[in-house]
Amino acid sequence: MNSFMPTPRTLMGPGPSDVNPRILTAMARPTVGHLDPEFIRLMDEIKGLLQQVFQTQNPLTLPLSAPGSAGMEASFVNLIEPGDKVIVLKNGVFGGRMAENVERLGGVLVLEETDWGRAIDPMQLESALAAHPDTKVVAFVHAETSTGVKSDAQALCAIAKAAGCLTIVDCVTSLVGCEVDVDGWGADAVYSGTQKCLSCAPGLSPFTLSDRAAEVVQTRKTPVQSWFLDMNLVMGYWGQGQTRAYHHTAPVNALYGLHEALLIAVEEGLAPAWARHERNHEALKAGLEAMGLSFFVPESERLPQLNLVTIPEGVDEGSIRRQLLADYNLEIGAGLGSLAGKVWRIGLMGYASRPENVLLCLSALEAVLSNCQAPIERGVAIEAMQSVYGA
Amino acid sequence: MNSFMPTPRTLMGPGPSDVNPRILTAMARPTVGHLDPEFIRLMDEIKGLLQQVFQTQNPLTLPLSAPGSAGMEASFVNLIEPGDKVIVLKNGVFGGRMAENVERLGGVLVLEETDWGRAIDPMQLESALAAHPDTKVVAFVHAETSTGVKSDAQALCAIAKAAGCLTIVDCVTSLVGCEVDVDGWGADAVYSGTQKCLSCAPGLSPFTLSDRAAEVVQTRKTPVQSWFLDMNLVMGYWGQGQTRAYHHTAPVNALYGLHEALLIAVEEGLAPAWARHERNHEALKAGLEAMGLSFFVPESERLPQLNLVTIPEGVDEGSIRRQLLADYNLEIGAGLGSLAGKVWRIGLMGYASRPENVLLCLSALEAVLSNCQAPIERGVAIEAMQSVYGA
Repeated sequence: MNSFMPTPRTLMGPGPSDVNPRILTAMARPTVGHLDPEFIRLMDEIKGLLQQVFQTQNPLTLPLSAPGSAGMEASFVNLIEPGDKVIVLKNGVFGGRMAENVERLGGVLVLEETDWGRAIDPMQLESALAAHPDTKVVAFVHAETSTGVKSDAQALCAIAKAAGCLTIVDCVTSLVGCEVDVDGWGADAVYSGTQKCLSCAPGLSPFTLSDRAAEVVQTRKTPVQSWFLDMNLVMGYWGQGQTRAYHHTAPVNALYGLHEALLIAVEEGLAPAWARHERNHEALKAGLEAMGLSFFVPESERLPQLNLVTIPEGVDEGSIRRQLLADYNLEIGAGLGSLAGKVWRIGLMGYASRPENVLLCLSALEAVLSNCQAPIERGVAIEAMQSVYGA
Repeated sequence: MNSFMPTPRTLMGPGPSDVNPRILTAMARPTVGHLDPEFIRLMDEIKGLLQQVFQTQNPLTLPLSAPGSAGMEASFVNLIEPGDKVIVLKNGVFGGRMAENVERLGGVLVLEETDWGRAIDPMQLESALAAHPDTKVVAFVHAETSTGVKSDAQALCAIAKAAGCLTIVDCVTSLVGCEVDVDGWGADAVYSGTQKCLSCAPGLSPFTLSDRAAEVVQTRKTPVQSWFLDMNLVMGYWGQGQTRAYHHTAPVNALYGLHEALLIAVEEGLAPAWARHERNHEALKAGLEAMGLSFFVPESERLPQLNLVTIPEGVDEGSIRRQLLADYNLEIGAGLGSLAGKVWRIGLMGYASRPENVLLCLSALEAVLSNCQAPIERGVAIEAMQSVYGA
């Protein structure tokens, strides 16, 4: 058996996204001990950088040593005790996963469903809270990775807060790709992933807990069911300087990568990053529409970093994706859950959100789709794209 | 703020251990998607390599996407349902953590304690099982990272099996450093970490489940409390080829590193690796004893890869460790839990188990200890070490 030598790909699926070479280089730096004074300084810098990208002053802001799914689980397992009522606003796969978390923890689930491909309607939350005034937590996904939809986190958090509820907000796909404003929203538990718009390797979950939520965790009647995700212990490990208590061994090299990714995000600035994601989305959209393809999500509810494209009639979607990968080393995503076979998911996340990737994706789709039953007009997509960039 | 540029250290604490440069290089290779056919091949190779180092045919053998602590939690959360009786044989910090896991899950804990620094006595398990014939699971640590002690996993598993119990065995520090024989022992749930004798970056937990244990997980009456660690879902994700079901996003680059680490282990061979750990331990021991230092653990119960050294009277142990790090970039470990201040933990794990590291450690300790109240005779340690290597 030989060392694994991956073929370099352009990653334009729903994540992992292309990793910035600066981050790959960072991850290969020599491993130091997790109690080394240099590593403790790194942890402090990461916490500060995460506060900046989350737009929060929450002292309890840190990366969990496991992927975004563990960030979701940490939110639920820490805030919810058996018998607690939780409203989950579901508009895709990840809302469904939230509901599963509530049930496994013995919480009382109130599931409010929205059609896939649509944003959550704040009025629906108003009604659900009126019907369930004893709700403790409201949970929803800000940017649904399965549908490419952005919901109005500001409005949803405000309604939940007015009803005295805590909020859990999934920002796995939104962080750095569009605005995430933890303190502005007044959100209580917010988690993300490293492999989306941070353009870092997958494996860690940036996480933040409001002071109000931290107090709830500290005053639970029952212990947190998970030792590994118990924030009472995790926050001890990520505490300030000398007061740190051993919990687990941090994934040292992965954290080198996250530090570099956060540095890149802060160097660019959040508003410029959001604008870049918006602009490249506009260019991709112009090209795809010129090619005759259409978007699955209404325009005002779309995520610029994750484009759901309806698969044209008569096209074998799996074959197209396989050709893109085999011929051009380009990865785009398939539909997930009930959208399997119906959409492609084209990501323009973080480092992958660049004009050269938009150009590659449009040209490759044009080349491959031209071989299908429904050939498309050559050249129009790139011209449409140029009209956006030239503007 | 700048990119993080760690000072290269020699890591001779209880882990992370020195990472082989081949592994650092592997982790920096371009990220591919977690559904890429190339990545699926990588996953299959990793499973096969893990079976080799665990010495098992268990089909359910895979790395969990989180550190060793999550491997421990996965073992307990999958095998135990509320009300199940579990005997935990505790002889250090990590046995205590096992007990915490049982309690958080609503299991009925039978805690059997052994003095720290001593191996678990199989007779104690016999008595405990006689007193608790309704026990479902017996759990213990093969290689206690807090004490440097190896227990007789073969004997303990045989006794548990004869009583009809499942076994959970912590092999975080033992895997590749000394014999781990999952099938030979008949162990049911065994987990490890990447940052010890695999000499990989921390962050993943190699894990294996016997067919018997897998059946217990599949026929539970209650759902596994953790969605992230539910092996019914995790095994779907790591399933064969096209039948893989999405669960979370695998930590792609960390898995590149693990693949390379496993390849290195298999290239060397397990028996030669154990012999190497033994030989370097003997050389370190000869040197330390010549210096007048003594071991905390009785000779027959010592782990060759983790040496617990009693701190001489009048020596400020923290100051010594800080000097080793500041002057020679050498990290050794402090005592953990009730052994804090009483011992050093000197690791010779995986790639770090090399004569040049033994030499560096002995020379550096000689240099630094010579400045203490109790100066030591110069040169004798290296001479004693040489007599082992020269033999």
